[in-house]
Amino acid sequence: MFQKASYKNPKQLSSVIDTALGREKADLVLKNVAFLDVFTGSFVEGDIAIYGGYIVGICDSYQGIEERDCKGLHLVPGFIDAHVHIESSLMTPARYEESVLPLGTTSAIWDPHEIANVKGCDGIKWAIESSEKLLMDVFVMLPGCVPSTSRDQGLESGGAEIVARDLLQFKDHPRVLGLAEMMNYPGLLNGDEDIHAKVHMFSQARRDGHCPGLTGHQLNAYAAAGIHSCHETVTKSEALEKLMKGIHTLIREGSCAKNADTLLPLINSYTSSVLALCSDDRNPADISSEGHMDFIINLALKASCRPEDIFRVASYSAAKMYGLEDRGAIAPGYQADLCLIKKNADNWDAGFKMVDVFKKGKVVSKELAHHTRVPDLSLRGNNIHTPEITAKSFHIGEGQPGPAQARVIKVLENQIVTEEMRVEIKVSKKGVECDPGKDILKIAVIERHQGTGQIGVGLVHGFGLQSGAIATSINHDSHNVIVVGVDDESMAAAVEALREINGGIVVWQDAQNISCLPLPIGGLMTDESPKIIASRLKYLKNSAKSLGCRLHEPFLQLSFLALPVIPSLKITDKGLVDVNKFQVVSTLCE
Amino acid sequence: MFQKASYKNPKQLSSVIDTALGREKADLVLKNVAFLDVFTGSFVEGDIAIYGGYIVGICDSYQGIEERDCKGLHLVPGFIDAHVHIESSLMTPARYEESVLPLGTTSAIWDPHEIANVKGCDGIKWAIESSEKLLMDVFVMLPGCVPSTSRDQGLESGGAEIVARDLLQFKDHPRVLGLAEMMNYPGLLNGDEDIHAKVHMFSQARRDGHCPGLTGHQLNAYAAAGIHSCHETVTKSEALEKLMKGIHTLIREGSCAKNADTLLPLINSYTSSVLALCSDDRNPADISSEGHMDFIINLALKASCRPEDIFRVASYSAAKMYGLEDRGAIAPGYQADLCLIKKNADNWDAGFKMVDVFKKGKVVSKELAHHTRVPDLSLRGNNIHTPEITAKSFHIGEGQPGPAQARVIKVLENQIVTEEMRVEIKVSKKGVECDPGKDILKIAVIERHQGTGQIGVGLVHGFGLQSGAIATSINHDSHNVIVVGVDDESMAAAVEALREINGGIVVWQDAQNISCLPLPIGGLMTDESPKIIASRLKYLKNSAKSLGCRLHEPFLQLSFLALPVIPSLKITDKGLVDVNKFQVVSTLCE
Repeated sequence: MFQKASYKNPKQLSSVIDTALGREKADLVLKNVAFLDVFTGSFVEGDIAIYGGYIVGICDSYQGIEERDCKGLHLVPGFIDAHVHIESSLMTPARYEESVLPLGTTSAIWDPHEIANVKGCDGIKWAIESSEKLLMDVFVMLPGCVPSTSRDQGLESGGAEIVARDLLQFKDHPRVLGLAEMMNYPGLLNGDEDIHAKVHMFSQARRDGHCPGLTGHQLNAYAAAGIHSCHETVTKSEALEKLMKGIHTLIREGSCAKNADTLLPLINSYTSSVLALCSDDRNPADISSEGHMDFIINLALKASCRPEDIFRVASYSAAKMYGLEDRGAIAPGYQADLCLIKKNADNWDAGFKMVDVFKKGKVVSKELAHHTRVPDLSLRGNNIHTPEITAKSFHIGEGQPGPAQARVIKVLENQIVTEEMRVEIKVSKKGVECDPGKDILKIAVIERHQGTGQIGVGLVHGFGLQSGAIATSINHDSHNVIVVGVDDESMAAAVEALREINGGIVVWQDAQNISCLPLPIGGLMTDESPKIIASRLKYLKNSAKSLGCRLHEPFLQLSFLALPVIPSLKITDKGLVDVNKFQVVSTLCE
Repeated sequence: MFQKASYKNPKQLSSVIDTALGREKADLVLKNVAFLDVFTGSFVEGDIAIYGGYIVGICDSYQGIEERDCKGLHLVPGFIDAHVHIESSLMTPARYEESVLPLGTTSAIWDPHEIANVKGCDGIKWAIESSEKLLMDVFVMLPGCVPSTSRDQGLESGGAEIVARDLLQFKDHPRVLGLAEMMNYPGLLNGDEDIHAKVHMFSQARRDGHCPGLTGHQLNAYAAAGIHSCHETVTKSEALEKLMKGIHTLIREGSCAKNADTLLPLINSYTSSVLALCSDDRNPADISSEGHMDFIINLALKASCRPEDIFRVASYSAAKMYGLEDRGAIAPGYQADLCLIKKNADNWDAGFKMVDVFKKGKVVSKELAHHTRVPDLSLRGNNIHTPEITAKSFHIGEGQPGPAQARVIKVLENQIVTEEMRVEIKVSKKGVECDPGKDILKIAVIERHQGTGQIGVGLVHGFGLQSGAIATSINHDSHNVIVVGVDDESMAAAVEALREINGGIVVWQDAQNISCLPLPIGGLMTDESPKIIASRLKYLKNSAKSLGCRLHEPFLQLSFLALPVIPSLKITDKGLVDVNKFQVVSTLCE
């Protein structure tokens, strides 16, 4: 339970009262600031007194050991990222903090689903431990769908399998808020015992959802099972049905999945109490160039959303949604997580700029500067357990030369859903051939955890490569190796380069032109600084572009093509998967 | 923790899912009903499927073992009385339920403060046990201010004293939501150790407030101490300051304290998520003639409050405020506490009528009819421990004949605050004399728990009695005997009559004309039916009126005159109390 004014002992309570009464000086007083009252929805000018990390007095006049005149500035509660996979930022939690805390994200709710898929319970343990060392508050939702589809379905090979009893050891940890996104809604709706055990186990906690497009009776059943949120909503009408059925909509603006433009119009005075914002998957390049929660808020303001509404969504409402009653408001007894901001113009429509972020009453920039960083050397080891990969590894449909009808994954810009295309292709002696002219490339997923050498090969449309290949060990959710390329040789070379760097991202043009970002922690993350990662990513993107790549986020989009719970056609190490039928299907049509 | 969809076991979860999917018939389907979506604020027409006490499907079409066409009717979530002293209804919890559940109050949050003042921890234990036997959900907040002022202050004698360690035994009971109204704000703000220990002990739970008129730095300190609510707000600006400081306003419409007219205009789309309704103290006559939460809602609708706002305040928002995440919405996984209502006209402005109330999916009127009531015989015993009371007991200011200046309590119609008047009075050999012509009567409080005979006598203006006396053992919060009358003889006779009935309410005209309501449970409650109590009360009121009484609620107003935490001038067994100074003062001015 997180309640406001949960002080360590009665002595601290006494000191807080004395300070609030003005008998003692506060640590810090922000004077003459226009602060947001998230209860009545108005900005009020006055003093904010902070003591021991808490807000202790508002509106009335206070004296402080430190005082700061904030005339002309606004103060809003710190932002909450209501659903994030920190791994998708490619950064360790400490580096994520360095990147987003100065942007006003003072709390985040992390589903360490990616590292759990690679390292199992060790990954979850690492996540919880990492979250404890930070200035910002990172809470953990326990991954409940590892792997994303059950082994019995035979749709993919993963690095780990986490069953209900594995989660018991973490369930009551104070940083754990509940069960993370229930992606396996078919399992939930069709009586999968382990899924039911997990959902039941967390019936006294929060159970996050993940149900793109679910509607009607199925959505009722999903909500009736106790799921309280969904961050996978892409249309306004979908959001309205989910909200009506008690599933809070988290408005997401990731690097790949971008739903803010569509969903921000949902926000009004009434709904501002039941919505939240999230990033889900957002890379450091986007974080540094555009922003984080502040970016979504600015989008909203520019779309004429009332500041009283959007700032409540970003803070108080997200906090209430997850039972974090100790934060999200600028009122006595609340944690002093604050954003001091400046309007870009008289009108909020022009957005705002961050002046200073306060975490538990302290200026974040100063705190981070004083913070001695210890490099994260945990969870290292060999990340690419595969036999040698050669051009031959990618052959499919050999021995049936001639033209043929093939199933092709159609990638949609900025979407993680795909479509199925049927295309006439050429089959040579070596099997199915790519046709870069028509943007028909090969794509493959190679199991990397157990060394089985299991490989699934298919065709994809949408990348636009004219030469070379792209490979990565980030590959939702099983995080096998995924590679796309114009020919089998380039693909094999890209995978071998990926092995050399022990996982990460590789753009392979030829033996002389290889760009890469090593991600030594599980093949997913690095302890490098956000700046270096962002510049590496930019360079990698340019390299991909120089190969002809047309996608804005080639690596992110590639890394979602193996997720067999998002429609329609996906690929895993077992082959092409028709997600609607939950079946492996062949590339060549019968 | 109360989360939605907290089913007993995975088997029940499976059955719920199957029913929600339409694979199995629901227990009950309300068809074609216009139900309130408290998330987006709209009425939607469709089916509501109920199974095992939960809502399992909404909007989509369902089959049920029982089906009911509700075309033309509206469905809203069951109402929550966010703060009540059930004792003030004069009824036992079972009788309270019988009275308010059919009016749509499906949950209530009870501060058993009155019985705790009389019986101490035994009273709290009785309250928790009584709450467990009901159809409606009654939750308990633990009384933290028994007596209402600390013994050291010497302002009154009470029946019990409850210190922090006494509450430990009840703290983790599943029906206990936290610490009840922190009336002793001077103690809290001035470092009373026991008060601090209590507030700290409940820092992981809810801590209700009670702070009439508190403002500025003091209100900041009160909020910073963790207090989250107040039901004692009487003006809109007071409410706005409290809300801004994070103290949720409970809009109260009791029998005596009536704040709805003033505070309902606070409600809008934004604030409808942070307000709640409550009755605090409401007697069965008012409940049966006007209503309960339904009455406040109708007042709001008639004042043109949007139904989407007021019904959310009455249900979802109150639930969220107290962490009751399992109720307050018509959505899958929520408890099926529902009010089926009919608009009185096309327009909501004309209010609504209740058609049927559902508690956990069952029609309340049928359930109550089948319910075998066991009379509540617990907590009986002698309630009036006093030596014999005679006319002489009420003499004050003897031996100083002549005119004098006196302090007089001025009672204000429908207010529990009083004012201090200074009046020229006559002092005879027997001491201060009443002056019914000027409505200056005697008032006295007699300690009734320990048999000390301690008595405080003073003067009061506002009752208007021309003959006789009124006495009662309901007397906030210490529940000593309080009596008001036109002369010492009538007062003594009224008190002796009260002893005869072992506590309750007495209107004494002369030896032949005595009306009374016996309240054998602690001198506060009876197990009689609400109807009988209501008719008795009506009769008693008429009797008081026939004595000349001008107050609409003479017994309730009388019973608050001994509460030395509500300004300005009060009376206890220790004498007149100047509440602003927290001092006993004399009736005759120096």
